[in-house]
Amino acid sequence: MDITMDLIKQLREATGVGIMDCKAALKASDGDMTAAKKLLREQGKEIISEGRAASEGRVESYLHHSGRVGVLLEVDCNTDFTASNDDFRRFMRDVAMHIASEKPLYVKAEDVPQDVLESEKEVFLQQAKTEGKPEKIAQKIVEGRIKKFYDQTCLLNQAFVRDEGVTIEDMRNDLAAKTGENIVIKHFARFEVGKE
Amino acid sequence: MDITMDLIKQLREATGVGIMDCKAALKASDGDMTAAKKLLREQGKEIISEGRAASEGRVESYLHHSGRVGVLLEVDCNTDFTASNDDFRRFMRDVAMHIASEKPLYVKAEDVPQDVLESEKEVFLQQAKTEGKPEKIAQKIVEGRIKKFYDQTCLLNQAFVRDEGVTIEDMRNDLAAKTGENIVIKHFARFEVGKE
Repeated sequence: MDITMDLIKQLREATGVGIMDCKAALKASDGDMTAAKKLLREQGKEIISEGRAASEGRVESYLHHSGRVGVLLEVDCNTDFTASNDDFRRFMRDVAMHIASEKPLYVKAEDVPQDVLESEKEVFLQQAKTEGKPEKIAQKIVEGRIKKFYDQTCLLNQAFVRDEGVTIEDMRNDLAAKTGENIVIKHFARFEVGKE
Repeated sequence: MDITMDLIKQLREATGVGIMDCKAALKASDGDMTAAKKLLREQGKEIISEGRAASEGRVESYLHHSGRVGVLLEVDCNTDFTASNDDFRRFMRDVAMHIASEKPLYVKAEDVPQDVLESEKEVFLQQAKTEGKPEKIAQKIVEGRIKKFYDQTCLLNQAFVRDEGVTIEDMRNDLAAKTGENIVIKHFARFEVGKE
């Protein structure tokens, strides 16, 4: 297989390893990007994928057959090579369908606005007090309920609709491990006719 | 054609005209909803469509073939009958494709946040002053540039990408006239890989 400059650049982009090493790894693996990455890792080359800007990616949509619910989703990664691969596309379709069904409000816990969080805490604390719990135990209960609130409203914390044994974050982690790249769910939109 | 209760209810929902009149109009027009509406209007019946809540509608998506740009769009109307019709669906597809191409930031002028508007005005005023325009003329120039700002950033004000002679608002108006219903572009999302 012909190793194009474009392929070499993509591998360099994905790993931060020097051009000559990338070229050699691609030659040794017949232009197979995943095998070349594995080879570089085996050679002990520094892979700088973690923490690098995920500036490639894809936008995916999902429309419920009723036409009344729709989702738009952007997932980013480090290279266009990974954004084009089947595992990545399948992940996007699964997550878009999941969002349509499970109605998350935020991508991750840190995205919950401070005032929403405060207001939830207040409600949970009042509930615990109404139930006659002592202050210390009430605080514990609030922590538990906030965690549950995250699990219900944050996409990454939610259990996958088609396999309750894994969260969306688990699936994201698996894909990151498989591709050796940062996988970032950047944002999503979910519209439903008759809802705000 | 059999005039179902469902069809009668939809016509009543769309026009606010009494059940018996709706039934008669549908019978006279062989169950053709559009013809029945026209007939009711010709009979001078009160059509209360204007101003009523547009609580039906559809969600549509558009993905650019690159997979790097996507749009989600919700358009509401008064009845599911209209939301299912070909003109409505074509309007949605056209507008979704238009948004992908023309990158509007808001649906309408009223959606531009006050601080954005103030900041734009300030810039335009400084520009006019730099050009040495007297205060009165500067104000006129600012008004003109704000109008241009709306025309560039607000979906309804934008010229349709496939026919610069009409705005999206013109197209919305045409569809409203054709269907006799409120047509409301409720919201849209536009994601592009590599952009905020």
